[in-house]
Amino acid sequence: MPQLVRFGVSLEKDLLLHFDTHLKGKKYTNRSEAIRDLIREDLVKKQWEEGKEIAGTITVIYDHHKRELVNKLMDIQHDFGGIIISTQHIHLDHHNCLEIIAVRGNPCKAQELSDSLKAVRWVKHATLSMSSTGKDI
Amino acid sequence: MPQLVRFGVSLEKDLLLHFDTHLKGKKYTNRSEAIRDLIREDLVKKQWEEGKEIAGTITVIYDHHKRELVNKLMDIQHDFGGIIISTQHIHLDHHNCLEIIAVRGNPCKAQELSDSLKAVRWVKHATLSMSSTGKDI
Amino acid sequence: MPQLVRFGVSLEKDLLLHFDTHLKGKKYTNRSEAIRDLIREDLVKKQWEEGKEIAGTITVIYDHHKRELVNKLMDIQHDFGGIIISTQHIHLDHHNCLEIIAVRGNPCKAQELSDSLKAVRWVKHATLSMSSTGKDI
Amino acid sequence: MPQLVRFGVSLEKDLLLHFDTHLKGKKYTNRSEAIRDLIREDLVKKQWEEGKEIAGTITVIYDHHKRELVNKLMDIQHDFGGIIISTQHIHLDHHNCLEIIAVRGNPCKAQELSDSLKAVRWVKHATLSMSSTGKDI
Repeated sequence: MPQLVRFGVSLEKDLLLHFDTHLKGKKYTNRSEAIRDLIREDLVKKQWEEGKEIAGTITVIYDHHKRELVNKLMDIQHDFGGIIISTQHIHLDHHNCLEIIAVRGNPCKAQELSDSLKAVRWVKHATLSMSSTGKDI
Repeated sequence: MPQLVRFGVSLEKDLLLHFDTHLKGKKYTNRSEAIRDLIREDLVKKQWEEGKEIAGTITVIYDHHKRELVNKLMDIQHDFGGIIISTQHIHLDHHNCLEIIAVRGNPCKAQELSDSLKAVRWVKHATLSMSSTGKDI
Repeated sequence: MPQLVRFGVSLEKDLLLHFDTHLKGKKYTNRSEAIRDLIREDLVKKQWEEGKEIAGTITVIYDHHKRELVNKLMDIQHDFGGIIISTQHIHLDHHNCLEIIAVRGNPCKAQELSDSLKAVRWVKHATLSMSSTGKDI
Repeated sequence: MPQLVRFGVSLEKDLLLHFDTHLKGKKYTNRSEAIRDLIREDLVKKQWEEGKEIAGTITVIYDHHKRELVNKLMDIQHDFGGIIISTQHIHLDHHNCLEIIAVRGNPCKAQELSDSLKAVRWVKHATLSMSSTGKDI
């Protein structure tokens, strides 16, 4: 288990009050855990900016009845095979599909894959969750 | 296939120029598809705000060696069983796990689940991708 | 936790000897756990035969370059939407895909879905793992 | 696309009749596709026997309320990290979990992982789907 260190933070009383109220709404039972999460959030952002190895998720919504679409999405994914770990597919209804692509590797590649999928006609929605491999955070 | 309608948009020449350059970087080959995506993005945001049925993805990074953590995450997920479709788990390395939870249902519940997972100690990172069931967009 | 009962079993010494050797190879550290697994295995078989609600997995290998194939597989899956929970897709190499379909519901439907996928041209391999919802076993 | 060759097969009329009836029940519309599947099935079996690189699926049913169980299953999976691609987890009900592990690599390792998971107490059911990476079949 990593060694814990303790340090003090000074800030305006009002600011702390607002923060504490916010934490409650966010299910935190502990101020330190919330601060740790802010710091880790910041480090994850840095990993994406600096081109370090990242992990993330691309979520895509589309209508599978557009015939060429399914092949197009499959081709794009195979072109980015190196950073895709696996894809989860959920049949939302007779028309709509939810596809969740787990990626790991270069952040630019991940962004490019997300952009490429989003730009395809009949893809209704695409989002990129920028996360981390968990190293150094 | 849905019927396509056409309408005109007037805007500053400079703004359109910037937009077109931006679209190229974003892999779009077609201005209409980009506009459609902006509109759909806006409608998805509305679905989340209005509490309509949504779909989405929660991405969580954690160290599975913290023993109680794994049970805690599992318990939280079973408490929110109604909105979870399935979960994808990837062993990133000997310590770090990437867990991707596909959700569908009430947006408040999805946000609450995401917050609850994020607030757990030893969860390093959690993000919520707000997407749609594909209906009405 | 369920109440444990104990009962005796009598059998030929040689048979027990062979069984114990077999268990070691199968990683069991405990004869009772092995017997419990045999009994549960038998009950799962019964659930499939009697048309009770089951859970299972269909594993499919195919070459995604056969264009119509991908659409065909997607259509079949949407026709059986009621029993499919979610599908995991892994890009094995530039050609080959591994698709894992989690199913729950009527065993005949599951078998029919498995057969339908297997019979499609360019599907190289399809297997059906017959498992259980965990109830009554 | 691979070149197709044609060859003749001679067999008893009755046998062919039974086979054709069987194929209909199995959703085949084409005798050649059925024969191809039998041949590929045989080659997949060979890949497992000869220790070639394989792909497969392990399906596990368990009750997540047995606290140590979840950690135990996670530890075993991390020990076999090299052959696990990703794991899909489905909350069947308040007690029962369906976990589907996609594997790729050495068939002995895959069998050993499957046996290790099955032998764990409170794991109710575990099956191994022996499939292929799609190469050479």
